[in-house]
Amino acid sequence: MRKSIIFTLCWLASTAVAQQYTKEDELVLPPDYREWIFLSSGIGMTYSGSASQNPAFENVFVNPEAYRQFLKTGTWPDHTVMLLEIRLSESRVSINKDGRVQTTVRAIEAHVKDSARGGWAFYGFQNGADKGKIFPKTADCYSCHQQNGATDTTFVQFYPTLIETSKNKGTYKETGH
Amino acid sequence: MRKSIIFTLCWLASTAVAQQYTKEDELVLPPDYREWIFLSSGIGMTYSGSASQNPAFENVFVNPEAYRQFLKTGTWPDHTVMLLEIRLSESRVSINKDGRVQTTVRAIEAHVKDSARGGWAFYGFQNGADKGKIFPKTADCYSCHQQNGATDTTFVQFYPTLIETSKNKGTYKETGH
Repeated sequence: MRKSIIFTLCWLASTAVAQQYTKEDELVLPPDYREWIFLSSGIGMTYSGSASQNPAFENVFVNPEAYRQFLKTGTWPDHTVMLLEIRLSESRVSINKDGRVQTTVRAIEAHVKDSARGGWAFYGFQNGADKGKIFPKTADCYSCHQQNGATDTTFVQFYPTLIETSKNKGTYKETGH
Repeated sequence: MRKSIIFTLCWLASTAVAQQYTKEDELVLPPDYREWIFLSSGIGMTYSGSASQNPAFENVFVNPEAYRQFLKTGTWPDHTVMLLEIRLSESRVSINKDGRVQTTVRAIEAHVKDSARGGWAFYGFQNGADKGKIFPKTADCYSCHQQNGATDTTFVQFYPTLIETSKNKGTYKETGH
């Protein structure tokens, strides 16, 4: 009993600020997203085939309550917020001699599930802004995620700790090469 | 007042299993380390200069209470546990055409601060084991971290969200190229 009270309180504390909007319908950047659940990093990922000589890392975080629900159900609950943090990279930092390490943030985007606002939407935070503008529903990201997202329009195929759960729950869609 | 009770309860819940040992002095792999605070990922990092054609990602996580203490003090409290998760990478996964994404875990190592056991120690988890054996104090990792770790024998120079805090608190040591 005490454990469930603690869990409930933690749940309230951890989800309180996941999803807030301004009066202008901008998404407020969750100030604590770096304390959310890390899903994975890629580097230099591209869907067009044009490689970069100075590739960026892409870190993906999700709010803790959505992550726990996903582990139970294999899909994302309403009010899921996924944050894509794009960071520049360098190679020769301190004693590192090859490969790449992460440096400064170049851009942040959010993918938000909100049934009260018509389902999933993408937001972009420009130049360090702490409020993100919605991408129009005609933007490529919507159709690409719809077509190629393994699970519920999200790229679970790139999140190694979620793939098995999604497959076991029957929510995983194989996507082409 | 209510807020501080919630915080205390969350703190207890989040730190309860960070650091446990078996009777044989092995470190128990924290089952929830993927829900800890993500510090950064590198790819193909090497201190010897020999590059890999199939580089691995290195994700670093730290227990939440240690992270919060670091933000306040610029150093790691007793009972800090840092987890290094090394994952293999692939390039052409699903619709991805270049760069690299993370796949399966190849190895896990821990760096643990425990004053009751003589300070910092490294543990290695072999072949998917959930218990890690200590590296002998003569292993290279100890002298390398002692000499090159920017902060308290840890590689804060590779954790972009902690560098500024450490510099502001006067705990940051510049390390050579």
